[in-house]
Amino acid sequence: MTQAAALSGTYRDPAAPTDARVRDLLSRMTLREKVGQLNQRMYGWDAYRRTATGFELTDALHAETDRFGGLGALYGLMRADAWSGVDHANGPDAEHSAELAELVQRHVIDSSRLGIPALFVEEMPHGHMALDGTVLPVNLAVGATWDPELYERAAAYAAAELRARGGHVALVAALDIARDPRWGRTEECFGEDPYLAARLTEALVRGMQGAPGEHFAADKTPVVLKHFAGQGATVGGRNSAESALSSRELHEIHLPAARAGVRAGAAAVMAAYNEVDGLPSAGNRALLTELLRDRWGFTGLVMADGLAVDRLARITGDKVSAGALALNAGVDLSLWDEGFTHLAEAVERGLVEESVLDAAVARVLRLKFRLGLFERPYGRGELPPPEQGRALSTDLARASVTLLSNHAGTLPVSPTVSRIAVVGPQSATTEHQLGDYTAPQRPGTGTSVLDGLRRLVPSGVDIRHAPGCALTGDDLAGIPEAVAAAATSDLAVLVLGGSSARTSGTDFAANGAAVTAVSEMTCGEGADLAGLRLGAAQYALLDAVVATGTPTAVVLVQGRPHIVPDTAAALLTAWYPGQWGGEAIAEVLLGLAEPAGRLSVSVPRSAAQLPVHYNHKDIEYSGYVDESAEPLHSFGHGLSYTSFAYGTPRLSGLTVDVDVTNTGERYGRSVVQLYIRRLITPVWPRTLELCAFEGVGLAPGERRTVSMSPDADQLAPSEVVEIRVAESARAALDAVPVVLDLRVPGLRA
Amino acid sequence: MTQAAALSGTYRDPAAPTDARVRDLLSRMTLREKVGQLNQRMYGWDAYRRTATGFELTDALHAETDRFGGLGALYGLMRADAWSGVDHANGPDAEHSAELAELVQRHVIDSSRLGIPALFVEEMPHGHMALDGTVLPVNLAVGATWDPELYERAAAYAAAELRARGGHVALVAALDIARDPRWGRTEECFGEDPYLAARLTEALVRGMQGAPGEHFAADKTPVVLKHFAGQGATVGGRNSAESALSSRELHEIHLPAARAGVRAGAAAVMAAYNEVDGLPSAGNRALLTELLRDRWGFTGLVMADGLAVDRLARITGDKVSAGALALNAGVDLSLWDEGFTHLAEAVERGLVEESVLDAAVARVLRLKFRLGLFERPYGRGELPPPEQGRALSTDLARASVTLLSNHAGTLPVSPTVSRIAVVGPQSATTEHQLGDYTAPQRPGTGTSVLDGLRRLVPSGVDIRHAPGCALTGDDLAGIPEAVAAAATSDLAVLVLGGSSARTSGTDFAANGAAVTAVSEMTCGEGADLAGLRLGAAQYALLDAVVATGTPTAVVLVQGRPHIVPDTAAALLTAWYPGQWGGEAIAEVLLGLAEPAGRLSVSVPRSAAQLPVHYNHKDIEYSGYVDESAEPLHSFGHGLSYTSFAYGTPRLSGLTVDVDVTNTGERYGRSVVQLYIRRLITPVWPRTLELCAFEGVGLAPGERRTVSMSPDADQLAPSEVVEIRVAESARAALDAVPVVLDLRVPGLRA
Repeated sequence: MTQAAALSGTYRDPAAPTDARVRDLLSRMTLREKVGQLNQRMYGWDAYRRTATGFELTDALHAETDRFGGLGALYGLMRADAWSGVDHANGPDAEHSAELAELVQRHVIDSSRLGIPALFVEEMPHGHMALDGTVLPVNLAVGATWDPELYERAAAYAAAELRARGGHVALVAALDIARDPRWGRTEECFGEDPYLAARLTEALVRGMQGAPGEHFAADKTPVVLKHFAGQGATVGGRNSAESALSSRELHEIHLPAARAGVRAGAAAVMAAYNEVDGLPSAGNRALLTELLRDRWGFTGLVMADGLAVDRLARITGDKVSAGALALNAGVDLSLWDEGFTHLAEAVERGLVEESVLDAAVARVLRLKFRLGLFERPYGRGELPPPEQGRALSTDLARASVTLLSNHAGTLPVSPTVSRIAVVGPQSATTEHQLGDYTAPQRPGTGTSVLDGLRRLVPSGVDIRHAPGCALTGDDLAGIPEAVAAAATSDLAVLVLGGSSARTSGTDFAANGAAVTAVSEMTCGEGADLAGLRLGAAQYALLDAVVATGTPTAVVLVQGRPHIVPDTAAALLTAWYPGQWGGEAIAEVLLGLAEPAGRLSVSVPRSAAQLPVHYNHKDIEYSGYVDESAEPLHSFGHGLSYTSFAYGTPRLSGLTVDVDVTNTGERYGRSVVQLYIRRLITPVWPRTLELCAFEGVGLAPGERRTVSMSPDADQLAPSEVVEIRVAESARAALDAVPVVLDLRVPGLRA
Repeated sequence: MTQAAALSGTYRDPAAPTDARVRDLLSRMTLREKVGQLNQRMYGWDAYRRTATGFELTDALHAETDRFGGLGALYGLMRADAWSGVDHANGPDAEHSAELAELVQRHVIDSSRLGIPALFVEEMPHGHMALDGTVLPVNLAVGATWDPELYERAAAYAAAELRARGGHVALVAALDIARDPRWGRTEECFGEDPYLAARLTEALVRGMQGAPGEHFAADKTPVVLKHFAGQGATVGGRNSAESALSSRELHEIHLPAARAGVRAGAAAVMAAYNEVDGLPSAGNRALLTELLRDRWGFTGLVMADGLAVDRLARITGDKVSAGALALNAGVDLSLWDEGFTHLAEAVERGLVEESVLDAAVARVLRLKFRLGLFERPYGRGELPPPEQGRALSTDLARASVTLLSNHAGTLPVSPTVSRIAVVGPQSATTEHQLGDYTAPQRPGTGTSVLDGLRRLVPSGVDIRHAPGCALTGDDLAGIPEAVAAAATSDLAVLVLGGSSARTSGTDFAANGAAVTAVSEMTCGEGADLAGLRLGAAQYALLDAVVATGTPTAVVLVQGRPHIVPDTAAALLTAWYPGQWGGEAIAEVLLGLAEPAGRLSVSVPRSAAQLPVHYNHKDIEYSGYVDESAEPLHSFGHGLSYTSFAYGTPRLSGLTVDVDVTNTGERYGRSVVQLYIRRLITPVWPRTLELCAFEGVGLAPGERRTVSMSPDADQLAPSEVVEIRVAESARAALDAVPVVLDLRVPGLRA
């Protein structure tokens, strides 16, 4: 019998109310034990060693549990990547993760006088970032689907996978809004728009956490929404730099997703690295306490980003006071910091009140009770069917492929095409289509574009392949071979792009951000790109392939918009589509699937015209002397293989009806976008604001009336606004508006 | 006897206190007359026509004075440029301006039941922008002098010139901080630093207004400080766009110059076009009233920028309510707007209280009393000596020439040089070295670089010239001739740059901003430049001249930092140095003067790395994957023809002593720059902040102890800061710091 099993008290009574259990447990804890609950200091991969027969625990873990008499939370027990050095040779795979988690948890509980289990916190930016984890397309691809319902199902799958492997808490990217494509973490954003991000964040919370309630089901995972707040707007797109945000810009653009996530019941948020108005989030009481808790009524947990608490020592002078600043600001749980290990000293020095510390401990404990960890500390669920994960990942990838231009009906591939050249450095690799944070893959996993086309082309179609060049650098030696393949084909599929693959050439900072990119990594955390340019050789390859005269479809596999001239016959972006992305792309190229994606970010013409968003403030501006100020491709844009006609919107109260007709020859899905343009309004308005959207699939000739209501949160009763319904923000500028006068009494009732 | 001369009352008693005069006059005025005082609707050049013998007043002026029974203020009576269409053929020159001003003023007074004179408001961004006005170097050049005392004398000269010609009020550029070089008005900024801008703004106010006091001397001019606030930080460098500023960024970077100007007694400020946190300044009560008047105690006048009031109709729905919004926000005097002409209707509709309107009228009237216009309505002072103006303008130009690189002692020109090729599109023109707003020049006025060199080279030195190419475009036809000249010379002086010249090809918006630049105009109001690139042919010319092997000194004449590779033997920037800039540049090239200028803006490597400032927030950042995040040339940088050594600073209380030694062979002027780096501080600090500076001229071998005190406004008693003294911000990073602990009791007493 273990020590913990002999324990009793209200806190061990599953029938007692959670608050009573928390109070009871807290009253039994020493200051040292409390401080332990607020720490998540270890890298999870330092807690174990794989042996010939299983796993053994390390001295480092023992030292950590000895230090505080237990363990609050453990980060990344299953994380595997180049930074952690974990791979299939030494890490926990899908089959053995639950065993490892149980081993660690058993030790933690045994180390705890009161038998308190640890939270196992795992990276889930696009699926579980562990060996064998199902990789979903990155958020920027998810944004392009405009399909919260599909994303909710994929998120639910990922949560079930995590819990089955013994994990408890998911670190999910959701709150960063893509306002500067130079930022390497643009791929982790749903896009530039607060409304779209809010709807997808809700879907994520619903999918992972399930229906709001006190307890989480065994296949559901509390989420930590990353990052709170404003991190998508760091100056220069520089990772962790300050965000230059006015109060209104913060609230209008960067907070709606967080607000929606909190309303949907998100269990936790992560305080961001960046400062807003003078203080990094981890030390920003105005954000973490006054706004989040006091105004929004958030009762969940606030976790700091990795080493963000210690960074505060830059202004406090030492790490003890840094920890005090963070706790007083509203951080409950730290990540890797030393500062939070000294909170007992901070209490003794009078830097923090013990009551403030108790409140933080209570929030950590509450999450453990809500997860049922005192009753069911070990994850032993069955893994959900892998084929379901693959299907959902592929569905998302397929829905995100965005056709930006398609001259002379180049796509879908015509039945007359019998020779296809598949070229470019992204054409035959799966490694570079996965996105940052992704764990090493088993050999043979996944589908490249070349794989997908080979599998799906009609028999008799000849596929020839040459990479042409590498993703980075200016080595042109491979171009002639690619040109030869293109010149002798009926169609060239040229797959270009960037990479966030953390290959062995990459170095890392203490928080896992990439430091240098001597590898082909030009995107991801720590890999900011000033010029938004692909590797130099890729442009030479593009020019050379287009110059052959063979119709060329360019496919971009990327984590941010890059500057790519619109010179080819067709241009698609698939973002990072995940393991089976090549299959999804091939389906779209061949017309086996519709190009359903719509841009969730504006694509700039150059880095010199940044920032470029559809929802900029409404000023008359004729452009730069040397360049337009308008994007190359508009937010919301994405072509279909069919065409749609929108009727003039009809307004009835707050409901907008619009008739949508498929006027083409094929089935297609139109994303009907409702924008408002404020006319009479108390502050200077944006040109357009997305306020509702709905995807509608229509057979050729089919017509349907779509009913939408603009988001009431975005409207004030003193305003007069135009409603514009269109297929993109650019098209909305030319759409026939209807005027909604919110001053009419009773309209909002 | 005129109508007005028959009037009496307290307001006409010069011995009565100004406030009593204002109250008395206000009590006699009708609502219509009051509204008239708040309007400055006409373009001054529409008020007159030049005749064979003098000037006659237009029907437009009569209609305006009839409408309100007088005239509050008249804009730009002497303005002359391509927009106004005024030139030497039809406008008022130096000799005849006072006559025109008297004619108009006499009519205004006669039109006014109470004999109220008008304010004549003139553009003075860098000297009086009128025919024959003395053109000073633009503010960006003034910033490079780091010499407030010299600037104060130049400003005093300009004020005397204005008053002598019958003008009353000077619109001066001062408050915009250069945070994005893409902005076409960067030339109007003193630089990127708030402290340097504050010191120069004080100097400007002192120089133009004289010692603070109730009345202005006859040769002194009340200033309208442009622009309040934050206009230097518009998004994308786009003219009139919103500024993305947190509250602290606004206060730390964009407001200190205004605060200093207000403390120095500035009579007026101009509300900027841009919005800050949701409202354009003209409608921003938080800025114009709560901050400026209530917190800062400003009692002067607030003028709106041109048509800025009418723009508010975009959110209020009509111009009447736009006028009301602006007046209620704190605007006293409008510029060209229709909105303010309807203020009587706004009062009647209850949109504004008459007491608010009265307060605005009182501020306009008060300025007229302070100027003595009721006693001396006509300017009849003698023009100050033109040679004094020329000397001051040239002194500023000389002090602003900044030597950025000088390999192998290329400069000053060696006595062994006997053949100099003077090439480049800026080498033989004065038109493009003047800056925006400048009036047409009389033929033969001014000195180009070619003129200056021809005049100043020792006898026997052969000067050959070829322009090489135009400022814009990619016509390479002239390059061979320039290359031939360079190839056969001992030295090439290659003068490149941009232009803000409003030549006849330019179109203009209703507010005078340039709309298109079919001319060579690539800078100035309305001419924003995304890529920061010179015309394409200029790069080809640079490459070709450098490739000759002849040592080449590149001189940049420009209104913003452009991207120019540092490939030549020497590189200088002279900004727009004014009419006699070519002489100043030639003196520096030849070593007849020292290169005393120091950069007041960081020079970026490319537009892709913007924003680039020395005083960014202090985050660890290793740079972009594809580019450094550091500037090409640092704020504060500027080489001398000699060299200096700085001792370790010594701290005594708040005083910093540092020994500066001229370690070279020539006289030189070092700008000793004192930076702080905050260590313990309540909000996230900047890497460095300029806190004091002093120029010191030293003979070879001379050593002097410079004593400085960091600006007390920038320090808080809870802080610990490092003091670093160096020749540039970049050098300060490597300088030996001394620590100043402000927590020591009594330190600041």
